[in-house]
Amino acid sequence: MEKRRILTGITTTGIPHLGNYVGAIRPAIEASRDPSNESFYFLADLHALIKSHDPKRVDESRRAIAATWLALGLDTDTSVFYRQSDIPEITELTWLLTCVCSKGLMNRAHAYKAAVQENEAEGAESGKTVDPDKGITMGLFSYPVLMAADILMFNATDIPVGRDQIQHIEMARDMGQRFNHIYKGQFFTLPEARVDDEVAVLSGLDGRKMSKSYNNTIPLFETEKKLLKLIRKIKTNSLEPGEPKDTEGCTLFQIWQAFATADQVEYMRKRYEDGIGWGDMKNELFELINEQLKEPRARYEELMNDMGYVEEVLQKGALRAREEAAPTIDRLRKAVGFGSFA
Amino acid sequence: MEKRRILTGITTTGIPHLGNYVGAIRPAIEASRDPSNESFYFLADLHALIKSHDPKRVDESRRAIAATWLALGLDTDTSVFYRQSDIPEITELTWLLTCVCSKGLMNRAHAYKAAVQENEAEGAESGKTVDPDKGITMGLFSYPVLMAADILMFNATDIPVGRDQIQHIEMARDMGQRFNHIYKGQFFTLPEARVDDEVAVLSGLDGRKMSKSYNNTIPLFETEKKLLKLIRKIKTNSLEPGEPKDTEGCTLFQIWQAFATADQVEYMRKRYEDGIGWGDMKNELFELINEQLKEPRARYEELMNDMGYVEEVLQKGALRAREEAAPTIDRLRKAVGFGSFA
Repeated sequence: MEKRRILTGITTTGIPHLGNYVGAIRPAIEASRDPSNESFYFLADLHALIKSHDPKRVDESRRAIAATWLALGLDTDTSVFYRQSDIPEITELTWLLTCVCSKGLMNRAHAYKAAVQENEAEGAESGKTVDPDKGITMGLFSYPVLMAADILMFNATDIPVGRDQIQHIEMARDMGQRFNHIYKGQFFTLPEARVDDEVAVLSGLDGRKMSKSYNNTIPLFETEKKLLKLIRKIKTNSLEPGEPKDTEGCTLFQIWQAFATADQVEYMRKRYEDGIGWGDMKNELFELINEQLKEPRARYEELMNDMGYVEEVLQKGALRAREEAAPTIDRLRKAVGFGSFA
Repeated sequence: MEKRRILTGITTTGIPHLGNYVGAIRPAIEASRDPSNESFYFLADLHALIKSHDPKRVDESRRAIAATWLALGLDTDTSVFYRQSDIPEITELTWLLTCVCSKGLMNRAHAYKAAVQENEAEGAESGKTVDPDKGITMGLFSYPVLMAADILMFNATDIPVGRDQIQHIEMARDMGQRFNHIYKGQFFTLPEARVDDEVAVLSGLDGRKMSKSYNNTIPLFETEKKLLKLIRKIKTNSLEPGEPKDTEGCTLFQIWQAFATADQVEYMRKRYEDGIGWGDMKNELFELINEQLKEPRARYEELMNDMGYVEEVLQKGALRAREEAAPTIDRLRKAVGFGSFA
């Protein structure tokens, strides 16, 4: 079987939290250890500019994410790890794809349509005329083209995504196919969305999905003290110690499951039946998580104090990515009529 | 007074004709000789992809335009002459501007609106539902962003344009201003449109404006034989030799004016009054034009047979352009949060 090439982008607008770790980072790092895969990981900082015009936030997020992935053991010898903005070929390709992408395709993108609907709802509610494109930047409107360039640049075959992202992979296929057709060649491999419905989704402090936008996250590499404090903040019901508790729908138990072995899960299920007190449960949860994060946390702190090393790793990654991107863009340039005159 | 920096892009989808020469190329080359200006000229091949998916056409046009400008004496020591696609910083900047450009701004672009109106008219006429965005690519929709990047990349101060292009310069100002505002710095000089209403517009073979799209052009560097043949094809009225003729609205006289000295114009006005025959007029017009084009035509043919030299000149131009673009994009990358970690 042919090697699958898996490509994963991480938008650099936040600091990794437990939910990111369990849902995305941990499975990605595991996948990178499978020798039948080639893995590409990149800090999607060009995408970050759509969401944030705060340079400090973008920069801090880039640093934290890079250090996090390295601290968790991403093998940068077997996989390619780079910053999107270090690969100028990607924006070049974005323009080539922009010229074969119909505007109608972008009109149908979910993220754009959701933003328009919000404006329309606001208009209906206030009775005033609201521009349906109010507050929408060209970045938001055209980012599926950038995403297609991310993927097609490296002829990635498998893109792990959530269900909400399937459409973008289809759009990337559409653009790749159109380019192949117009310029009469097999320039691009058409990628496939890999949706893993088993991906663990963690709840946050308030019981809703753990997410930056709900402000209910537990940052992955907080200090021990802060981690314990945050775990203690997780909302529970008011059952007393000794009263049997339901594991179903319990945020604490769900987080436990995400970090525990099968045996540990069974053990805790039993403790719930026996009426474990919430305070005890929180302490045990802290111990479980902290045991697993202790070492990577120390490495993370080390790395955050040695960004020269992280920079070096990413420069090496950029070099490897460009070793592939440069000849590809060269071929594409020739295809569209941009060859050398000589 | 500060040096003005003049920037001119030439879309590479056609072969230069007499109309291009008189209306754009000749005045641009003259302006480049003014020591109070710095001139930037570029082959806008990224823009060409919006209009043409035919690589052969794009490539031939790039070659012909480059050779034409050089043959006509563009001084590439005092001015910077490059291919847009050789400057990867331009597409990088395009993305940065995409993220500060509101979609509403692009909705209002004339070229896009005209395309939508055409679709709507088609719908109204046929009684069928026609997607207002039918046939419109993201290239057409977003090209004012690319154009803004062309201009802002080099902090050009003066952009010579036709009236129909003023809006694009205003859009470039808008994006530059927004970027300066959001990222709190004087990153970009805001460009000004320079509209020259005196620019000669030539009529073509059929009396309409000489334009590729009317298929009525006289290519600038046709062979002598072909030039004469084409001039003989220019439409006239049916007045006989000896009958006095009107210079007003006469395509032949208008072309004469574009190439003649004031004395020569007076001379020909007299000949019209005296009833010059159309055949004679066409011969005299051929002589006048041919005299001026003979030398550059020979140089053009030489260059077209020595594209290695043209390539070298453009590589040198790209180097000079990038000497300026690279530190600029570096500064912009830092501004948005893409600095080095070390």
